[in-house]
Amino acid sequence: MFKTDLEIAQECKLEHIRDVAAKIGIGEEDLEYYGNYKAKVSLDLLRRNENKEDGKLILVTAINPTKAGEGKSTTTVGLGDALNKIGKKTMIALREPSLGPVFGLKGGAAGGGYAQVVPMEDINLHFTGDMHAITTANNLVSACLDNHIHQGNELDIDIEHVAWKRCLDMNDRTLRSIEIGQGPKANGVERHDGFNITVASEVMAVLCLSTSLMDLKRRLGEMLVAYNSKSEPIYVKDLKIEGALAMVLKDAIKPNMVQTLEHNPVLIHGGPFANIAHGCNSILATKTCLKLADYTVTEAGFGADLGAEKFLDIKCRFGGLKPNAVVIVATIRALKQHGGVAYEDLKEENVDAMLEGCANLAKHIDTVKHFGLPYIIAINEFATDTPSEVEALQNWCKEHGHAMSLSQVWAKGGDGAIDLANQLVELCDQPNSYAPLYDVNDSIEHKIETIAKVVYGADGVDFTEEAQQQIALYNTLGWDKMPICMAKTQMSLSDNDKAYGAPINFRITVRELRPSLGAGFIVALTGKVLTMPGLPKAPAALNMDINEEGHIVGLF
Amino acid sequence: MFKTDLEIAQECKLEHIRDVAAKIGIGEEDLEYYGNYKAKVSLDLLRRNENKEDGKLILVTAINPTKAGEGKSTTTVGLGDALNKIGKKTMIALREPSLGPVFGLKGGAAGGGYAQVVPMEDINLHFTGDMHAITTANNLVSACLDNHIHQGNELDIDIEHVAWKRCLDMNDRTLRSIEIGQGPKANGVERHDGFNITVASEVMAVLCLSTSLMDLKRRLGEMLVAYNSKSEPIYVKDLKIEGALAMVLKDAIKPNMVQTLEHNPVLIHGGPFANIAHGCNSILATKTCLKLADYTVTEAGFGADLGAEKFLDIKCRFGGLKPNAVVIVATIRALKQHGGVAYEDLKEENVDAMLEGCANLAKHIDTVKHFGLPYIIAINEFATDTPSEVEALQNWCKEHGHAMSLSQVWAKGGDGAIDLANQLVELCDQPNSYAPLYDVNDSIEHKIETIAKVVYGADGVDFTEEAQQQIALYNTLGWDKMPICMAKTQMSLSDNDKAYGAPINFRITVRELRPSLGAGFIVALTGKVLTMPGLPKAPAALNMDINEEGHIVGLF
Repeated sequence: MFKTDLEIAQECKLEHIRDVAAKIGIGEEDLEYYGNYKAKVSLDLLRRNENKEDGKLILVTAINPTKAGEGKSTTTVGLGDALNKIGKKTMIALREPSLGPVFGLKGGAAGGGYAQVVPMEDINLHFTGDMHAITTANNLVSACLDNHIHQGNELDIDIEHVAWKRCLDMNDRTLRSIEIGQGPKANGVERHDGFNITVASEVMAVLCLSTSLMDLKRRLGEMLVAYNSKSEPIYVKDLKIEGALAMVLKDAIKPNMVQTLEHNPVLIHGGPFANIAHGCNSILATKTCLKLADYTVTEAGFGADLGAEKFLDIKCRFGGLKPNAVVIVATIRALKQHGGVAYEDLKEENVDAMLEGCANLAKHIDTVKHFGLPYIIAINEFATDTPSEVEALQNWCKEHGHAMSLSQVWAKGGDGAIDLANQLVELCDQPNSYAPLYDVNDSIEHKIETIAKVVYGADGVDFTEEAQQQIALYNTLGWDKMPICMAKTQMSLSDNDKAYGAPINFRITVRELRPSLGAGFIVALTGKVLTMPGLPKAPAALNMDINEEGHIVGLF
Repeated sequence: MFKTDLEIAQECKLEHIRDVAAKIGIGEEDLEYYGNYKAKVSLDLLRRNENKEDGKLILVTAINPTKAGEGKSTTTVGLGDALNKIGKKTMIALREPSLGPVFGLKGGAAGGGYAQVVPMEDINLHFTGDMHAITTANNLVSACLDNHIHQGNELDIDIEHVAWKRCLDMNDRTLRSIEIGQGPKANGVERHDGFNITVASEVMAVLCLSTSLMDLKRRLGEMLVAYNSKSEPIYVKDLKIEGALAMVLKDAIKPNMVQTLEHNPVLIHGGPFANIAHGCNSILATKTCLKLADYTVTEAGFGADLGAEKFLDIKCRFGGLKPNAVVIVATIRALKQHGGVAYEDLKEENVDAMLEGCANLAKHIDTVKHFGLPYIIAINEFATDTPSEVEALQNWCKEHGHAMSLSQVWAKGGDGAIDLANQLVELCDQPNSYAPLYDVNDSIEHKIETIAKVVYGADGVDFTEEAQQQIALYNTLGWDKMPICMAKTQMSLSDNDKAYGAPINFRITVRELRPSLGAGFIVALTGKVLTMPGLPKAPAALNMDINEEGHIVGLF
């Protein structure tokens, strides 16, 4: 019987975070401890190292996720451990898990098996409070907005045209669509509203794209909250609370340090949605790693069509980051699913289906090439993989000239990715021609078309009438010179979540646009995106428990 | 020009919390640092000292609060410093401030002047995340409750008869009364709901009355969430999530250590509402102090009619605490207001009005005597107090045989309460006959009447028809053998908030009862209690700011 992730994590004898930080040259003066195993890292550390040359930056991405599982975070953690093992000073930068989903289907999320970050329980619960601070900041905007309306509405805010929602870090479907301000007049003005989950708040995206506390404050001020009766935009700065918001986020903006099971340093910081936001950890965390380590391994949400594209077009652009290589994670199970095998039948050997599913992988490889970056395929090994399947995949890679490595980090930790690490060191030494895919000064339509054609393989893009009107408005308001953040199903390269593999002969429909002016991008929605998840019939919360000694079970 | 509280706090050179803890004999093994100046104290420390004799326990309470200000927390902090100054090993136990009101009228709250606890900014912002954990636990109950209804409603919950609300630590009037679950069926079942401010959540009261992690879990399970269609109660334990809730609160249940401006150890832990809950810091924090220090100074919300009564009838009863003396704080300004002077005229000398206002003070003294405890009046000095007023008050005390001391802690810190401290040491050595006011086995009506007559000076109690029906129901359900938590205006001894001084010839009306079964008391509401505050026209948030170095302004 396999141990659960939680059991493996609980068996780990953690090192004091002071000692973990010391390995990478961070002294106590730059640490703020949260217990013995977590610490906030000062922003001053980055400021003092501003002029130092960046280390190498490795992005871990994946094929389109399937129910079969890929193991992107697991690979990221295991690769970081492996690089340290072969003597390369390496740090890992990850996203913070959201508390809401922990109580739902998912349980915890911080790698898996022997490639995890710890203390697992804390990381998956309140951690250092960043999510709570973001929730507070988001809801302070709402409270001040509704209070402004209630107290006379000097800004002439149109209550039918509010662009800001409340949020909670909870999977709570009944809060998606609500009517607020009911009852007597003292209860404020009645209007329609809804709650997002905290990671979908623009405050999260803003925090992750900020390059300093002052940049954070400026971006918070730029966030759009509503339109007035003349349809003119009203920003947070019009409410005069960007200072209070920045104060609320004064600690949340500092990266959090933890360790892998092998005691290597990890920064976990920020975790925006990967559809209506850009799905990467904070720029500040990544930059801090780049200044301190020779190699930084990081990841981005979902498959390369969403995560890598946004990492390379949004995060690297805003942060001035220069990536050196990309790891594309796949599993033989997931490739079979892309090749048409049903979830129930994934245990059966099926070389043909797997090779068919490689079309999905090939498309993502193509995307990475378009960005001008060297890459390697990491096959995250499962016990059900058969020798014939592995051999067929190796041959496929050889035929097409793709670098590839078998990874066993789930079972072996860093030892399971020594070959991957060695190959990456070589890839990182290659010169590359990284550049974002489009110019921000292109038209909104052209930017979206570029992504759809190059990354998704679409024939073109259709814009609904609503989207066309919005584009016209944004052009007038001068909001057209920003990167695009595509909100598309993660399940498929197309906007049809049933289309596995590499669909062809399809067009993408952009139904709606949303300005994230503080984050600095325009969100293009190709389908209905749920920004507040629900709980399943039997939530994971039902199995969670704690005993008198504080021992936790059920946080798998 | 006086310095603001924030400026005074920012000038303080804090000691590392490790060194502050060491003064009271707490070693590093029992501390979990949150930065250098805050720490969680392990529950194990209390467990190991279980059989040790308790130190002396001093409660600081006050006359009925007025707009003029009394300075209960300031006196508590200053008195703690003074006791340490005269060589008595003393700890202070305080309530945690709520973040919501910070953005409203109030700014920060952690004492004032030179009698403050620090780091002031952190204590008033997210502190160690306790409030956020309570918010999460409260809303996990709501999410699981509504999810249960949505997924088939096996427990047959009557959606018109839900007894649980959501919460946020935010002053947000528009969330008082809302309609949730609107839109398509996937958004859950539509019903009426509302948000409380977090400190009004029963989870807060439960946390503060728990004596261990397992007691916490048990109490969480007992919380009433709804009734089924047969009007039978449904508890959290029926939802099977008390384990998850206890897990969410695993850190929040540990007391938080900080320091006074004079570097003396303070535990700040828990802060329930003082009307619909009992308004005292956690039993665990108070007990920890009692085991480690020779003297513990603590406070309770509002005036003695609410705070002290609940401290002595609820908290001490549940915690097995034996108080030794009570400090009743008053100001000459506030006494004048109780004597009929308008707020605008408080600067003018008015001996007669002050003496008239002493009726309010006299009634609270009477209450403390009824509990069998020695007491002292602490007059918190203001610059506008005149020598004639002070002398008249001293004479009044002498005539009536009341111990009294002038306190200048706001201006002088511990040095301003040396006399108060010395007098208290003597009072604590007196034998006392402390006992709660009523037997929990008395009828609900009798318990409420006892409080109303003895503490408020009422002639009797009227119960509305609704209240009578509820009492009948609670008797049937066996919920009648619990202490009573009175929800009454804090502004007056009566249930009429305009009646200053010591009203006579009045009756109290109990309009409604609410069972707080996890906390273990029945709330009796005498008026409309607002459990979600609103923001004023110009919220304090508008003046808050932070600069690049992290320096905060506007958190006064």
